[in-house]
Formats: sequence, structure tokens, C-alpha cells
Amino acid sequence: VFVLGIDPGLSRCGYCCIEASGSRQRAVALGVITTPTEMPLARRLSLLQSEVRDLIDEHPPSVLAIERVLFQNNVRTAMAVGQASGVVMAEAAHRGVEVFEYSPNEVKGAVAGHGSADKAQVTQMVQTLLRLERPPRPADAADAAAIALCHLAHSPALTRRSAAIGVAP
Amino acid sequence: VFVLGIDPGLSRCGYCCIEASGSRQRAVALGVITTPTEMPLARRLSLLQSEVRDLIDEHPPSVLAIERVLFQNNVRTAMAVGQASGVVMAEAAHRGVEVFEYSPNEVKGAVAGHGSADKAQVTQMVQTLLRLERPPRPADAADAAAIALCHLAHSPALTRRSAAIGVAP
Repeated sequence: VFVLGIDPGLSRCGYCCIEASGSRQRAVALGVITTPTEMPLARRLSLLQSEVRDLIDEHPPSVLAIERVLFQNNVRTAMAVGQASGVVMAEAAHRGVEVFEYSPNEVKGAVAGHGSADKAQVTQMVQTLLRLERPPRPADAADAAAIALCHLAHSPALTRRSAAIGVAP
Repeated sequence: VFVLGIDPGLSRCGYCCIEASGSRQRAVALGVITTPTEMPLARRLSLLQSEVRDLIDEHPPSVLAIERVLFQNNVRTAMAVGQASGVVMAEAAHRGVEVFEYSPNEVKGAVAGHGSADKAQVTQMVQTLLRLERPPRPADAADAAAIALCHLAHSPALTRRSAAIGVAP
């Protein structure tokens, strides 16, 4: 089972594809999609769309988990993040990938145990849960990994039940 | 020259395709794309994407003009509108269609002469400019027509120069 975690953004969109098999969770792809700030908005969104399409081709996920966009920060950024998230979700649905949204607090709560965890704690927990040699970088990629892990923690389905009885799905 | 005007939205996305030839402007398509509120968000965005794709296939525009999303109304609606606009812009850019954004005040100013025009005045001007027998309905479609007309009014290019010298482009 592949779960693709996405931390949506237009300048920097974090992604992490996690392969879950029984109790094992392994990152098979982790990184950031960037689009040039000097490019017109519509072309940046189109570029993001084609990069997400390539990601889905490479490791076809059964689920895409994405952070729900909120308005903590400035309104201009939030709108670009919303547009980026719309493009990612449409592409996933178009490809038959099921999409789940999680709030930032749900993500922090799931990986670090409480919704007020800071970035360093989340990165630390992602490193531990995925048994990475180094802390995942950059921060957007670590956040995407946390979102995918959040989905796996919440998912009452195959993965966890299989883990409980020790059988790979 | 076809200009596709879009009033972005997730529940209701207005569209109007205007054929501009010299000084003549004619609506060749006008309506609203709707997506069911009970459908999951990602599937609604994917549905909107495929409807926009069909529109572009039907009357291939050289330009897509879209209203810039602002935050006058409630934050939940604005985010859905932003996601919808992202999907529309990405699809247009993917198809090689140039995208222009206009603020609500620019649109009102261009079709009704002042940025504080109300909906009824905009609808009235759209009806006059496009020589429609009846006021365009629903409001989202009329807004989309106003956005396309705004682009034609701002465009310093072929269309207007041709109009000035009385030659169809």
C-alpha cells in the first residue's frame, strides 16, 4: 500500500510516498516540488499538476493525504496554497486515488502525540517512525511525511488490522 | 478570437465564451458548471476540471479571463473558490491557453463604467454589450460574461486595433 502525503504549496509543495506493509512503514520518495516565482500563476499551477501526475505514475498510491488549508498566515499565501491544493486534489481524484484531508493539529497529534508539537518535534518523530538515518529535509518534505503517517495512524483499515495479526496486506 | 470568461466557484462556476471579431462581440456559450455539494471535495474539483476541459474543446479560446479571488465573504467559501480557480487556471495553461486575472472592481469598472456598480447594472450592461434578448441568467454566467468583456476592453491587441480600422482579425 502506497500513501502519498502532500504538504500543499505553490512555491514549495512537499511530498512523501510511504509504503506501508503490516507494521512496517518505509519512505520510497520524499522531496519538494518547486515552481519559479517569476512564472505566471497559471503556468506554475500547470507545472505543479504535471509534477504531481509524474509522482502518481512513479509510485501509484491508493490514498493521497493532504493538509487542510487554513488561514493562519497571510491571505495572499493562503490563496496560492488553496489553489495548489485544488490542483493536487483534482489530479488525484482524476486518477482514481482516494483523497483524505487532515488539519495541521490532527497531523501533529498523530505523529508527535499532541497538537501543539513544534516543527522540530514533528521532524524528529518522522525520522524515528520511518527509521531515517538523518532528519528529513527540507521542512516541507518532513511535513508531507507527517501527513502520510497521520493517515496511516488514523486509518482503521487493512494496514493496521494486518499489523495487529502480523500479516502483510 | 474566442475569450472564455470564468467566474470561479465550486458549487457554481459561471462561464461565457465570447467570439470577438472586429467590433462585434457575440456570446457563443453561456452557463454555469455545478458540482454536487454531497460529493467529496476532490471529486468535485476533478469534475470541474473535466467540464472545463470540455468547454475548451468545444470553443478553443485564445484567452481565458478569470476573476481574481478575494476574501470579502466567508473564509470557507473563499478557500473553495480558490481551489476551483486553481483547477481552472492549471487546465487552461496545460492546454496552452493564456490566462488573465481581473479583480471584481476592474470587471465592474470595465463593463459598467465604475467599480461600485451593482449586480443588476452589470447584468444590464452585459445584455446591452452582447445584444442579448433577455438579461443573462444565472448571475454567475452574467459575471463570467462581464469578465470576458473586461478582458476585451483591456486588451490593447488585435481585436481593438482591428475594430478601429474596421477589419476583422
